[in-house]
Amino acid sequence: MMSIKDVSLGIDIGGTNTAFGFVDKDGKCIYESSIPTCANEPAPMLFKRLHQEVEKIYTTISGKYKLIGIGIGAPNANYFKGTVEQPPNLNWGVVNILEILKQYYDLPSAITNDANAAAIGEMQFGAAKSMKDFVVITLGTGLGSGIVVNRKLVYGADSFAGEIGHTIIDPSGRECGCGRKGCLEAYASASGIKRTVYELIATTNTPSELRDISFSRLTAKDISIAANKGDRLALEAFDYTAKVLGLKLADTVAYLSPEAIILLGGFALAGDLIFAPTRRYMEEFLLPIFRNKVKIIASALPEGNAAVLGAAALIWNEINTNN
Amino acid sequence: MMSIKDVSLGIDIGGTNTAFGFVDKDGKCIYESSIPTCANEPAPMLFKRLHQEVEKIYTTISGKYKLIGIGIGAPNANYFKGTVEQPPNLNWGVVNILEILKQYYDLPSAITNDANAAAIGEMQFGAAKSMKDFVVITLGTGLGSGIVVNRKLVYGADSFAGEIGHTIIDPSGRECGCGRKGCLEAYASASGIKRTVYELIATTNTPSELRDISFSRLTAKDISIAANKGDRLALEAFDYTAKVLGLKLADTVAYLSPEAIILLGGFALAGDLIFAPTRRYMEEFLLPIFRNKVKIIASALPEGNAAVLGAAALIWNEINTNN
Repeated sequence: MMSIKDVSLGIDIGGTNTAFGFVDKDGKCIYESSIPTCANEPAPMLFKRLHQEVEKIYTTISGKYKLIGIGIGAPNANYFKGTVEQPPNLNWGVVNILEILKQYYDLPSAITNDANAAAIGEMQFGAAKSMKDFVVITLGTGLGSGIVVNRKLVYGADSFAGEIGHTIIDPSGRECGCGRKGCLEAYASASGIKRTVYELIATTNTPSELRDISFSRLTAKDISIAANKGDRLALEAFDYTAKVLGLKLADTVAYLSPEAIILLGGFALAGDLIFAPTRRYMEEFLLPIFRNKVKIIASALPEGNAAVLGAAALIWNEINTNN
Repeated sequence: MMSIKDVSLGIDIGGTNTAFGFVDKDGKCIYESSIPTCANEPAPMLFKRLHQEVEKIYTTISGKYKLIGIGIGAPNANYFKGTVEQPPNLNWGVVNILEILKQYYDLPSAITNDANAAAIGEMQFGAAKSMKDFVVITLGTGLGSGIVVNRKLVYGADSFAGEIGHTIIDPSGRECGCGRKGCLEAYASASGIKRTVYELIATTNTPSELRDISFSRLTAKDISIAANKGDRLALEAFDYTAKVLGLKLADTVAYLSPEAIILLGGFALAGDLIFAPTRRYMEEFLLPIFRNKVKIIASALPEGNAAVLGAAALIWNEINTNN
């Protein structure tokens, strides 16, 4: 007789699409798919459609797999309350996601933000499997972070700890989406490096192919491609981005003394354009007792379904922690 | 028959004096005394003298009290290894303190730095008795910190987490004792505010009684006294100090989402001269989701023996955590 394997369902809610997949305890993704999020619909509608899709798949695999829990990654998620609170790209207000889920499933469930889910994913299945203390930094349009101390995610008093993207570089610096000025994510992110390129275009005479691209059309990938071809302005933009990030990661080490800092997300795909100078600047800014101790490494989760793996890992992590 | 009460021995090693005392589980200090540290003597000599003094007292109280463990607060202490490593004011190099202690006592023992001991003291006996997540900032000559997450001190990978005093305000700023530039403790500390006063004396024409005091003789207390009399330059120095501190505490909240930040140490005795503007600036710099949530409060440990209480609390904390 074939044994039935436990799987958890990972759901990653984005502004455009909601991805989901069944993940076993070793981090193998059995099946992954996605549906449109429809940002203007209320949250219960999304979960109604999601439930239909999930059940369609689950009936085809339930002879071999048993669903044991549901983990969700979502913007502005409150882990303690099970809510999503005023997500920037979704017209939801404050909504209790775990309550909605109960209408469909009587299973252990948990929700957290995507950077926290990524941190738990790295701990369960990825680059931090054997680490006790580490920090995950997601470099996308913004900069998210998840902090793990002694193999537990740091949520703090209100579940919103780990907002390293909103530590301040310069209180009179660039406007940030949060309404303040000078936040790290306005510099060290895909959108931050675009702003740096435009500052360099404005303040220097350095020739660059990027001068031909409008701000609206410019992408972080354009900047990577130019830098890889030796474009001096693009290289200077990476250097400045890494300097700001390295400085703040040196602060992160002073706070937390992590074993490693894991960089992931779309902008981290720039690879050594960002990793190499960030490592160099972080070492330069580190308190001497921390020098040559803290690795800056890439995610070890497959790029395609890292978010779903992280969400599913939430459940595996709670099972492992409670046993 | 009178019952015998358990006490732990708290030892606070400073550059000049080493204080010790017996502390019961409610934080009552039964007896406290101190001996000179003699910074140029090797560590084993200090512990030989300390043992003699401790035993002298212990024989007088051992009919009523039983010693159950020893906690030590010391500069550059490594909690994991039991060592003190290159303490700045003691000619010790790297020395295993818990090994030395074993020659005299076969009891549970632990060592950590003074800011960490203060954090555990506040949690066991002081302002953080009912808190799960908080941060202690010691404002003395320098700025130390102890971070508590979910009622556990954050040590990180190498035991040196919690160096908020060495996060960087401005990488081209004031020289710090650590060999780098622009660390928070070069601004927000008793020595930091002296430097601010001298910068203001140099860069403004604001009249001030502090213009008559040499840098070597000037103390933070002089600045408090002047400020309390309405000296504009002294008040401006407090305002600037609070602005820098408030900015970095807003970062601290973004990292950790603590319930409260506890300020203690000699410079915190300036009271509302430093508390009031620090609260105001922190709120101004906070990410909106954290506003009006995080208290900045004073220590609730008695000023005289806070360090010994904190060291003794290390043992009570480990007993409570393991039961």
